[in-house]
Amino acid sequence: MSKLKTMTLEWTGESVIFIDQRKLPTQEIYVECETYEDVYVAIKDMIVRGAPAIGASAAFGYVLGAQKFNGAFDSAEGLAYMEKVKEKLASSRPTAVNLFWALDRMHRTFESFRNEPDVVKLLEEEALKIAYEDIEVNRAIGKHGAEVLRDGDTVLTHCNAGALATVDYGTALGVIRAAVEQGKKIKVFADETRPYLQGARLTAWELMKDGIDVTLISDNMAGWVMKKGWINAVVVGADRIAANGDVANKIGTYSVAILAQKHGIPFYVAAPLSTIDLNTPTGDEIPIEERSHREITHVQGVQIAPDNIKCYNPAFDVTPSHLITGIITEKGIVRPPYDVELKKLFE
Amino acid sequence: MSKLKTMTLEWTGESVIFIDQRKLPTQEIYVECETYEDVYVAIKDMIVRGAPAIGASAAFGYVLGAQKFNGAFDSAEGLAYMEKVKEKLASSRPTAVNLFWALDRMHRTFESFRNEPDVVKLLEEEALKIAYEDIEVNRAIGKHGAEVLRDGDTVLTHCNAGALATVDYGTALGVIRAAVEQGKKIKVFADETRPYLQGARLTAWELMKDGIDVTLISDNMAGWVMKKGWINAVVVGADRIAANGDVANKIGTYSVAILAQKHGIPFYVAAPLSTIDLNTPTGDEIPIEERSHREITHVQGVQIAPDNIKCYNPAFDVTPSHLITGIITEKGIVRPPYDVELKKLFE
Repeated sequence: MSKLKTMTLEWTGESVIFIDQRKLPTQEIYVECETYEDVYVAIKDMIVRGAPAIGASAAFGYVLGAQKFNGAFDSAEGLAYMEKVKEKLASSRPTAVNLFWALDRMHRTFESFRNEPDVVKLLEEEALKIAYEDIEVNRAIGKHGAEVLRDGDTVLTHCNAGALATVDYGTALGVIRAAVEQGKKIKVFADETRPYLQGARLTAWELMKDGIDVTLISDNMAGWVMKKGWINAVVVGADRIAANGDVANKIGTYSVAILAQKHGIPFYVAAPLSTIDLNTPTGDEIPIEERSHREITHVQGVQIAPDNIKCYNPAFDVTPSHLITGIITEKGIVRPPYDVELKKLFE
Repeated sequence: MSKLKTMTLEWTGESVIFIDQRKLPTQEIYVECETYEDVYVAIKDMIVRGAPAIGASAAFGYVLGAQKFNGAFDSAEGLAYMEKVKEKLASSRPTAVNLFWALDRMHRTFESFRNEPDVVKLLEEEALKIAYEDIEVNRAIGKHGAEVLRDGDTVLTHCNAGALATVDYGTALGVIRAAVEQGKKIKVFADETRPYLQGARLTAWELMKDGIDVTLISDNMAGWVMKKGWINAVVVGADRIAANGDVANKIGTYSVAILAQKHGIPFYVAAPLSTIDLNTPTGDEIPIEERSHREITHVQGVQIAPDNIKCYNPAFDVTPSHLITGIITEKGIVRPPYDVELKKLFE
């Protein structure tokens, strides 16, 4: 169990290799990160993205940081160094809580074992455990979530909460995969998900790879396909779930949730417990990352808007819990009242 | 009055020159059409687009058709030829009713005067009248519509219902221009409007040219900016308005209308009477053009989705009348019940 290789990432023992998600689907290019600073850049620049995937990636980054250290881990210097590694990796992106969750877990392991001679090996094992657990968790999410999909259903999804957003299998797409594995005929409508086009580039690509029936639409067509009666359920992922059930997820999720409610379509969020942050009381307290205006004004390097146009580019929005039919976790489907039911998951 | 030149088009007397709206905002390229077939292609390929603009363009195309005919207009051959010209131009795009309205008007003029020696000149005058009337109509729409905007308001608009969608001044953007001319401070949020990006490419460009404060967002951000309380009104154009007030407009308009309703934001449609089609009872009878999947899979020639991905690409959707606060026309603002009030405009 000292190596791991999935569609999203590979742990070689001394580096982590990512498929460059910025280049998909037209190019399959791999980026090897040998230092924790490399991993920081990979997360920040969205070579790897998706809340569970960046959690596991940061854990491997933390291991790389430890591997490169030549001093004594049980010294004040060793502690300060690993704190610096943790802080650097944590500063790569602000919204997904899995990032902080995974780094906290790694750092707790470090604090427990920094007197041991094999601390680096123990950290590597912990990072691999995080990664393997993520796959298991996604399979459990899929199994629970598949229950809400009927044979013949068409599911709309937004962004990519798929294999590429996790270590493997996916959360929202894990639900679809599990339903398909159960023999159900499921069709998917994928929002292209501007500005970063995770739907067009990643969801479409990985579902086609798996032979799952997927139709790509522009984000602004979601309401119209619902009006036509083509959509039976919406399933999306999450970057952070507050204690009251408010969900931060890719920008546009909020609009999709309102449209689903208006059309009487159930709206599910699929996410592991590591995405639930009981320390964040409501969605109002979730920091929303704003990204470069260039993501709006350019598509794959091609300019589509006037020079110097003013833009607004939030990477995420918050869907209030009252719009959410259920939150699909590895422990089962949580339904309202979320403030009560989410807490129970951790008891 | 034998020539006309605006941002959108120029009538030279023997050709019509369009700014190529496919190339904006990064290139200002002009395309000269010397035949009615050229104009057909210009409309079909969206060198010129926007319901009122394609109405006037088709009228000039009809004149070019007449200019090129060498036979006798008062013969059966002459009538058949001009019917062919009309049908060809009418087949360029199916949804906008202004196209058929303008061609019918040109053809009626032809039928009335085809025995006259100066019929071609009379047709040219009629086309110019359609074009000049459009500008006047837009100014009247602007004047009426500006009444609903208060000093300091922020308006969200979708697609481009601006100068470039009309002969000049614009319908939805005419409302904003008129409010600004009245001295009101108005800010605009422009949806980029995938897949064709009329918002990013055209609305942003023409509002910046006029020094109007415009912020560009992706379509899926509209709900979020409404949730933040930043939007005071939505104003959009229309491609066809049915007798009951249902409005066909650029894909995504329906979603914006639902989001506006959910947030208690007034939703206005600005359009000339030539967009209202009393012969279409409801939105269900409006044909919705589906366009090439390449518009979804490629942006300005750059591939953003996997090869052979299934797509759905309706160019328009229908917003049911109950979501519409008012329809701003050159005769004033029409409010519900639309089935009664729209009819009155034509009495």
